[in-house]
Amino acid sequence: MKVIMDLTVSPFGVGLSVSPYIAACHEIFEQAGLKTNLHAYGTNIEGEWDEVFAAVKKCHETLHGMGVPRITSSIKVGTRTDKEQGMEDKISSVKNKLAEKGPIR
Amino acid sequence: MKVIMDLTVSPFGVGLSVSPYIAACHEIFEQAGLKTNLHAYGTNIEGEWDEVFAAVKKCHETLHGMGVPRITSSIKVGTRTDKEQGMEDKISSVKNKLAEKGPIR
Amino acid sequence: MKVIMDLTVSPFGVGLSVSPYIAACHEIFEQAGLKTNLHAYGTNIEGEWDEVFAAVKKCHETLHGMGVPRITSSIKVGTRTDKEQGMEDKISSVKNKLAEKGPIR
Amino acid sequence: MKVIMDLTVSPFGVGLSVSPYIAACHEIFEQAGLKTNLHAYGTNIEGEWDEVFAAVKKCHETLHGMGVPRITSSIKVGTRTDKEQGMEDKISSVKNKLAEKGPIR
Repeated sequence: MKVIMDLTVSPFGVGLSVSPYIAACHEIFEQAGLKTNLHAYGTNIEGEWDEVFAAVKKCHETLHGMGVPRITSSIKVGTRTDKEQGMEDKISSVKNKLAEKGPIR
Repeated sequence: MKVIMDLTVSPFGVGLSVSPYIAACHEIFEQAGLKTNLHAYGTNIEGEWDEVFAAVKKCHETLHGMGVPRITSSIKVGTRTDKEQGMEDKISSVKNKLAEKGPIR
Repeated sequence: MKVIMDLTVSPFGVGLSVSPYIAACHEIFEQAGLKTNLHAYGTNIEGEWDEVFAAVKKCHETLHGMGVPRITSSIKVGTRTDKEQGMEDKISSVKNKLAEKGPIR
Repeated sequence: MKVIMDLTVSPFGVGLSVSPYIAACHEIFEQAGLKTNLHAYGTNIEGEWDEVFAAVKKCHETLHGMGVPRITSSIKVGTRTDKEQGMEDKISSVKNKLAEKGPIR
């Protein structure tokens, strides 16, 4: 079952800079061969359900291994049976609608 | 790895009443023997990582089987290594703090 | 415009125990006269859009005032025009469906 | 109080294609002069608290005006007092960490 996920991993108890921990998660996604898109509040991930959720679990295990005592992940995950749709399709379908509307009056 | 999760399952393309689909998910949690707490915007779930996420996957498979063409689940999942904490502990720790503060001035 | 919200306030940089900060938020909801329901991963809040979001803003201001350097709030907010529905209605509509299904086979 | 937000607007009861409604929201952000970044599961928005949340409210009002009977928005909103950080800073801080790590072994 193919999914598109949006994942925000929040490590607690290790200060205010989270980027080292987010970078560690991206290594996990890359090693798993998952397609990702980093944005300012998380990462879009595309792939099969089991592979994507295995990567999320590995993020928690890895970050705990790095000494993070408490982790909260915020996840949005979508599945659909009506059609195949990848990350780029979702973005371009909105951009096409905006282009049809023309410049903002 | 023990988790506390908050899960909101949103079925699209099947009208405005989602309660039949949420009830179907609760049957899955019950069959899996998971501890749950239904609230107005989702369900808290407590259990082992693999069992809890297997139940979420089964919700998507079951709802698609009920004819739902598109599903988005919004998940918050927490793990911690500093101490054991169940759902009731989390609620009572806030209620105790409120009790200490006494009536609102 | 009436809303039902689910709010999780996450303070960073102040250790692992968040309950004092959640209790401070609940004082704000109570002072604003908002209807709330505390659960294991956040708080359901019911009220008018402006009053509920003013309370969220006050949570951020208050917690920064308590010395929290970084805060992330995770919010689900729902509005509908097809019918009036309060927090209890949402919960009972699922519980009624579960009752109709009878004991799990 | 400056915020960085991640917003996902989900319209219910109007079929499976949400892009026309997301495009309508982007017109609102543009008219408000807000800085945005569209991704596959929502939109990052940067600006002052009141302006950003006023735009979210206008999204709900506009979509209801377009005939959407039920809307759920999923929001992550962050504020910090320790330093100024914009959307690009958050992304580049992770990308720099990844660059330091070098290619994945």
